[in-house]
Amino acid sequence: MQPPAPDPASVQAGPPPAEARAVEVLCIGTELLLGNILNGNARWIAERLAGLGLPHFRQEVVGDNRQRLIAAVRAAAGRCRVLVTTGGLGPTPDDLTTEAIAAAFGAPLVEHPEIWEGIRARIEARGRVAAASNRRQAFLPEGAAVLPNPTGTAPGIIWTPTPTDPGFPIQPGFTVLTFPGVPSELHAMWQATAEPWLRDARLAQGVFASRLLRFWGVAESTLAEQVADLLEGENPTVAPYAGAGEVKLRLTARADDQASAAALLDPLEADLRRRTGSLCFGVDDDSLASVVLARLRQRGETLAVAESCTGGGLGAAITAVPGASDVFLGGVIAYANALKQALLDVPASLLAESGAVSDPVAVAMAEGVRRRTGSSWALAVTGVAGPGGGTPDKPVGLVHIALAGPDGTTSSPVRFGESRGRDWIRTLTTGEALNRLRLALADPASP
Amino acid sequence: MQPPAPDPASVQAGPPPAEARAVEVLCIGTELLLGNILNGNARWIAERLAGLGLPHFRQEVVGDNRQRLIAAVRAAAGRCRVLVTTGGLGPTPDDLTTEAIAAAFGAPLVEHPEIWEGIRARIEARGRVAAASNRRQAFLPEGAAVLPNPTGTAPGIIWTPTPTDPGFPIQPGFTVLTFPGVPSELHAMWQATAEPWLRDARLAQGVFASRLLRFWGVAESTLAEQVADLLEGENPTVAPYAGAGEVKLRLTARADDQASAAALLDPLEADLRRRTGSLCFGVDDDSLASVVLARLRQRGETLAVAESCTGGGLGAAITAVPGASDVFLGGVIAYANALKQALLDVPASLLAESGAVSDPVAVAMAEGVRRRTGSSWALAVTGVAGPGGGTPDKPVGLVHIALAGPDGTTSSPVRFGESRGRDWIRTLTTGEALNRLRLALADPASP
Repeated sequence: MQPPAPDPASVQAGPPPAEARAVEVLCIGTELLLGNILNGNARWIAERLAGLGLPHFRQEVVGDNRQRLIAAVRAAAGRCRVLVTTGGLGPTPDDLTTEAIAAAFGAPLVEHPEIWEGIRARIEARGRVAAASNRRQAFLPEGAAVLPNPTGTAPGIIWTPTPTDPGFPIQPGFTVLTFPGVPSELHAMWQATAEPWLRDARLAQGVFASRLLRFWGVAESTLAEQVADLLEGENPTVAPYAGAGEVKLRLTARADDQASAAALLDPLEADLRRRTGSLCFGVDDDSLASVVLARLRQRGETLAVAESCTGGGLGAAITAVPGASDVFLGGVIAYANALKQALLDVPASLLAESGAVSDPVAVAMAEGVRRRTGSSWALAVTGVAGPGGGTPDKPVGLVHIALAGPDGTTSSPVRFGESRGRDWIRTLTTGEALNRLRLALADPASP
Repeated sequence: MQPPAPDPASVQAGPPPAEARAVEVLCIGTELLLGNILNGNARWIAERLAGLGLPHFRQEVVGDNRQRLIAAVRAAAGRCRVLVTTGGLGPTPDDLTTEAIAAAFGAPLVEHPEIWEGIRARIEARGRVAAASNRRQAFLPEGAAVLPNPTGTAPGIIWTPTPTDPGFPIQPGFTVLTFPGVPSELHAMWQATAEPWLRDARLAQGVFASRLLRFWGVAESTLAEQVADLLEGENPTVAPYAGAGEVKLRLTARADDQASAAALLDPLEADLRRRTGSLCFGVDDDSLASVVLARLRQRGETLAVAESCTGGGLGAAITAVPGASDVFLGGVIAYANALKQALLDVPASLLAESGAVSDPVAVAMAEGVRRRTGSSWALAVTGVAGPGGGTPDKPVGLVHIALAGPDGTTSSPVRFGESRGRDWIRTLTTGEALNRLRLALADPASP
């Protein structure tokens, strides 16, 4: 049986338009409620729905419990146009999805012998014997079409149920699509069948294009005020997010086609960049490290690091970028003061006079590693990551960052505070160091 | 204002018992519905709830939309005893959680001047000016207690609302707890306030005690077969989880009190350790790095590293442990071959003959950094992290790891494969290196 052609008629009809076109996601599995696994399927589907421009207002997770599953399916049928489920299609007794969906709409299950044949053939091809329990997977609700599973045993369904219960109102055209929880099977089924079906259903009003602008050195609230008027926009929209020291603005536009959507985003991005100047360091998948490495590569320059409080984290962030090796030479983790002397030539007298957490020592570390490695640029960090080791003069969260380059060396302290803890201080130190180099490379006074 | 003491009375009362004690999770944020981020918060909370033995039947995600947020809160209030929300507590206009929750129960918002003072003080301590928008965060529903946020600006609430709408039935004792979406803030608030509150609420039947055993060097399926009979147990239970190279077994026991629960776990842990021998490296919050550092500290010995493909990640993992500085001296990030020569005295001839990714070079790196730093032990890693740089002889995922110590140096290769990518290879390299040192330190032949 072919999946039924979607019925666009019911879409055009009634308000509220977005809700009547909305897609919901219902992920089924007790392992999700126990926190055993991350819900990567929900994110993956959400990303696909956004790319298709489909309204997606709600996701839900329930366990392998028949009554709660039926209740969740019925509630969704009253709210949305398309329900996408994941999980619960396997052969074991806790796989309840198909049976519960049938029960939700009072439909009997009917066997599809061709599915059972396919399951047996697939299992026997692996040299195993199909268990009787596998036969359950060949029973689908009466009237449901098969959503083929090219890479696994259990198919899903595409079904527009006809409710028999007059006291149970469902959205016109309501259709449920079921997928296994195994990500690779879900992905293959989605791409082969669900995505074309959703496109044909014409639930999207145009397409969406999205772009992420990345900022360093500004608080989320400050950035939001700087662009407050743009946060009110309806198309394109701008939404701020805060990460570990980084702030992001997501720009999203809806249009008839990708080119028109991009044409809405381009002037918005230009406006945002004009307002925020050098605070914006990149877009989409850029990181501070990738941006700095790309700029150094263009200039034919190299980089080394000397790390105390980050203990290797700065080097790790830089080398997280594939292909870093043509720019990044390496460096020294000078955690102990003796190593600052032995491997970076920091004078013992300087350590005694200024202390390890100071601008003079940061400068000596940066210049030492630059000299020893022959790099064009060098970053050095020394600070108090905590939780111990703080003093009134040099509290936890105080970090000195030095940058040595072709035109000399600069250093200054930054205070991250101690409230967010050691990891936070080390992550922010890494970002702040890379950002200083980024700004130096962007400086028109630089070569 | 102190958070209100939970009211256990309403718990004892009515059927259905599990639903009336259930905790639901509502994650708020359009970025989740757009698939921009994984819902790590839902998983983290679910894991905590399971550890507390609390019934958890449903998770939901909605966007930054006032009407849908109100509807979701009201529906949850009719179903469950405790609703935990994440996200939407920030200062920007799309942060709607607090206001929508108040509206759901018809309560006015009242300002808490002490919260506003705290927010201002925190922002000003970072040398910034508090924005007027931050003041929104000081408004809480009338009657709600503050759920303090020790590491961020926005506090949450603990609130047992009194509904004014007679047509809107809510579960007896229904209480909502709100958290920011920033994971570090959520975790700190949960541990300081929510977890004690949930324990006091006595929503669990009996108490749960839980213990995590951590393993390195074994596949999840192999470990599961080794302990298959124990996985069938009902009390205590054993459940396997796989992480990045690490495998964990979670042991959980239910009893009338903590001592009785622990008495169920102790013999189980002993049995598991007997069966798995040196594969088990630690328990609960242990990491390979923390275990190795503790052992070296006992022995009065020190450690240094020489890193190529990990680029600093090994040092970063070691220094992630607070107080690492009395054992870990530092080391060299020798990403470029020139630095392997200049900073680690690896002979150019050796690099030419064996190639940088080889046992002889790993040995020379480990011995070089041990000599230069004067450490008792040294770890060196050199490999192909990919995605580029692989050859048929030295494919992506091949890493040589050397350990130099008081009794000499050993080195051998390990192949992690390329299918899981660069981050995975670098993370596994770090763990494998630390595990080799752990096994050397555990060897009874060692001093």
